[in-house]
Amino acid sequence: MNSQKLSIPDTTKKRIIIIGGGFAGINLLKNLKHQNFQLVLIDKNNFHTFQPLLYQVATAGLEPDSIAGPLRKQISGNYEYYFRMASVLDIDPVTKKVLTDLGEINFDILIIATGTVSNFYGNKSVEQNAFPLKEVNDALNLRSHILQNFEHAVLIDDQEELEKYMNIVVVGGGPTGVEVAGALGELKRHVLPKDYPELDFSGMNIYLVEGLEKLLAGMSEKAGTTAVKSLRKFSVNVVLNTMVKEFDGNRVLLSNENAIETRTVIWAAGVKGTIFNGISKESQLKGRILVDRFNKVRGTENIYAVGDISVMQTQAYPDGHPMLAQVAIQQGRLLGRNLKRIEKSLNPVPFEYKDKGSMATIGRNKAVADLPGNMHFGGLIAWMIWMFIHLVSIIGFRNKIVILSNWVWNYFTYDRGTRLIIRKFIPNWEKKSS
Amino acid sequence: MNSQKLSIPDTTKKRIIIIGGGFAGINLLKNLKHQNFQLVLIDKNNFHTFQPLLYQVATAGLEPDSIAGPLRKQISGNYEYYFRMASVLDIDPVTKKVLTDLGEINFDILIIATGTVSNFYGNKSVEQNAFPLKEVNDALNLRSHILQNFEHAVLIDDQEELEKYMNIVVVGGGPTGVEVAGALGELKRHVLPKDYPELDFSGMNIYLVEGLEKLLAGMSEKAGTTAVKSLRKFSVNVVLNTMVKEFDGNRVLLSNENAIETRTVIWAAGVKGTIFNGISKESQLKGRILVDRFNKVRGTENIYAVGDISVMQTQAYPDGHPMLAQVAIQQGRLLGRNLKRIEKSLNPVPFEYKDKGSMATIGRNKAVADLPGNMHFGGLIAWMIWMFIHLVSIIGFRNKIVILSNWVWNYFTYDRGTRLIIRKFIPNWEKKSS
Repeated sequence: MNSQKLSIPDTTKKRIIIIGGGFAGINLLKNLKHQNFQLVLIDKNNFHTFQPLLYQVATAGLEPDSIAGPLRKQISGNYEYYFRMASVLDIDPVTKKVLTDLGEINFDILIIATGTVSNFYGNKSVEQNAFPLKEVNDALNLRSHILQNFEHAVLIDDQEELEKYMNIVVVGGGPTGVEVAGALGELKRHVLPKDYPELDFSGMNIYLVEGLEKLLAGMSEKAGTTAVKSLRKFSVNVVLNTMVKEFDGNRVLLSNENAIETRTVIWAAGVKGTIFNGISKESQLKGRILVDRFNKVRGTENIYAVGDISVMQTQAYPDGHPMLAQVAIQQGRLLGRNLKRIEKSLNPVPFEYKDKGSMATIGRNKAVADLPGNMHFGGLIAWMIWMFIHLVSIIGFRNKIVILSNWVWNYFTYDRGTRLIIRKFIPNWEKKSS
Repeated sequence: MNSQKLSIPDTTKKRIIIIGGGFAGINLLKNLKHQNFQLVLIDKNNFHTFQPLLYQVATAGLEPDSIAGPLRKQISGNYEYYFRMASVLDIDPVTKKVLTDLGEINFDILIIATGTVSNFYGNKSVEQNAFPLKEVNDALNLRSHILQNFEHAVLIDDQEELEKYMNIVVVGGGPTGVEVAGALGELKRHVLPKDYPELDFSGMNIYLVEGLEKLLAGMSEKAGTTAVKSLRKFSVNVVLNTMVKEFDGNRVLLSNENAIETRTVIWAAGVKGTIFNGISKESQLKGRILVDRFNKVRGTENIYAVGDISVMQTQAYPDGHPMLAQVAIQQGRLLGRNLKRIEKSLNPVPFEYKDKGSMATIGRNKAVADLPGNMHFGGLIAWMIWMFIHLVSIIGFRNKIVILSNWVWNYFTYDRGTRLIIRKFIPNWEKKSS
């Protein structure tokens, strides 16, 4: 096995290595098509994950494959594109090398599009026992875990013990937290009672715990208050101004000293970057990589960072842009175009974020959307806009069709087709005791 | 936790326990609806698996969830139905008890519908390293393994080493073996070369190894010869009169002393029953359970066995019926009706197998079908019949829609949407060395 250069041939073309096939990475790739570059994409998975719909996989609404797209398929055509399924261990800006678990490879231009991972802010008990929701595997583990809890709950007589298996605590009142809490509310009201007629669902409590005094802090005031109101109507207990102190796998301790008996804590309270050692300290800001208006990493000539891992401070966004799919997509696209411009000795175009608004779905017929021009929608219209935007955005025509059919099905039948425990999940705290 | 009776309340109704939610089990359930019984279904999974399409999951044509149906959903309505996700450890016909990993439960009537597992005929090296294809997990492991092999193959220079990663050996020339070999032939010709333009696919060899002198031994002579001819045209090497002697994870040794370098052996060469200790030796025949014409286990009064695990010897079928979904479905249905008849003091109706024919698909536009009335089809017509029958048979309207859309997509695009390594597979031989 030739691990040098990951078996990628040297050519006269410039080699561009892209680390990460998320929103930034694949949009960059698409916009580099048909050019005089050798493109190398490295990702630890062989698929792109459409993260905005992960929560629907976790709540049995969609099949995992529907929200993933094969990375090898992302470019097809008559030019040089290589994909390698590998983990990047480090980069060396001086010798221009990327070090992976498959070996080393040198680059002419490097693009870091690694995104973020869950941030547990040093809380070990939460990190060990709570469920993140960043990857397809996370969503599948969570789906199995919730269903396994209910399969177990039917065997329990003791009411307090029973509620531990039925209760679910969601931490973090951003879009992911709001959406997953809303979807769990639907499971509680429409789906699970049909499957488990033996259980009394008034004993199932869904909590959404948020440290700030409002939900959806990145959105309008109106969106936040609508979310609180709607979630409460959908039988979710919204707990504001409160943090999680500890979770041992059976019991959550809150900052207000209240405790909730539960086996399931979903962590959507924050993300952080993981930065390669090769990036100098001066080019970092709070765990992310400082870039200029062309997404070039400060202090380098041929290294770029795009999407969530990068921080671009501009007049309009002095603290950097929001960590949203739209920013990643727009940065990826522009960087693709700029690399082509530079190749043609044209000046690159500085990045200007075009805010297309933000939105979050809360449940059946209910979403909130802030659109450009100070337009705020709630309810059915926002919900339809949300569905339309997500269908348009997801990669692959096949995925669009499959997701649309599932949504139509779920809507009219109040059913969730994929409530299957395909692979059992064994929590960390049970692994330890066995 | 009340493990006694698995937390199922005692009622005045007769308790019928069904072990296994396969074709026999769910068809039995459906035909016991609205009756004066307490129905308890026990299965280790919370879903029914549509086994005839497992090979399409393994070859990235269908999503795993599409061929599975939640067992809790199988009966809905106003009568007593309990599902328990549990493994049955043993049964006791004398005290009328079923022992599970969740505890014991007593029955009035017991129905054993446990199906079969792969039979490796005592060959330990094959059992440890080959892939069975009986469960959703098997199919997912195989899908991941094949794709991981190709991700690895792009890194290899040595031609012999390379072929080891690309070659695939299928063992067993029954319907499953023929179908999976045909689907692999399609991957080789239409799908993989687009994903891996770096690889030379003339180096990828697919073998179908069968011990007898023909394929599809249970079908007509014509079906067998058509299968051989078509598979060869679809670039599958059909090796007849040959058995597998050994497979160490890297190399298959055949009974003709030839060896094939490969990391992937798919085992479709045989199945066997697993029989609870509580079943007397006199009621067993070659690892299956002897039943009378009413599927009652010989020597018992209230224990029945249906589907593949049972052997019913009749004049027309002196060695028992073929182990086919149709037999299981028909037996399940009839037993459901008979239990209702007995309850009304009517005589039960003896089982009479209605042979609806058998079929196997080979690839694009190509299948073989033997239908009643000595009708034999090959080619496009058989292929369309095959698709129609499978769509009609699969449980759940949602699954039908999703599968049909996938088939239409796969057919017109020559694409496979689900070539994703969602969870990496680690082979036994690598686990040992690590």
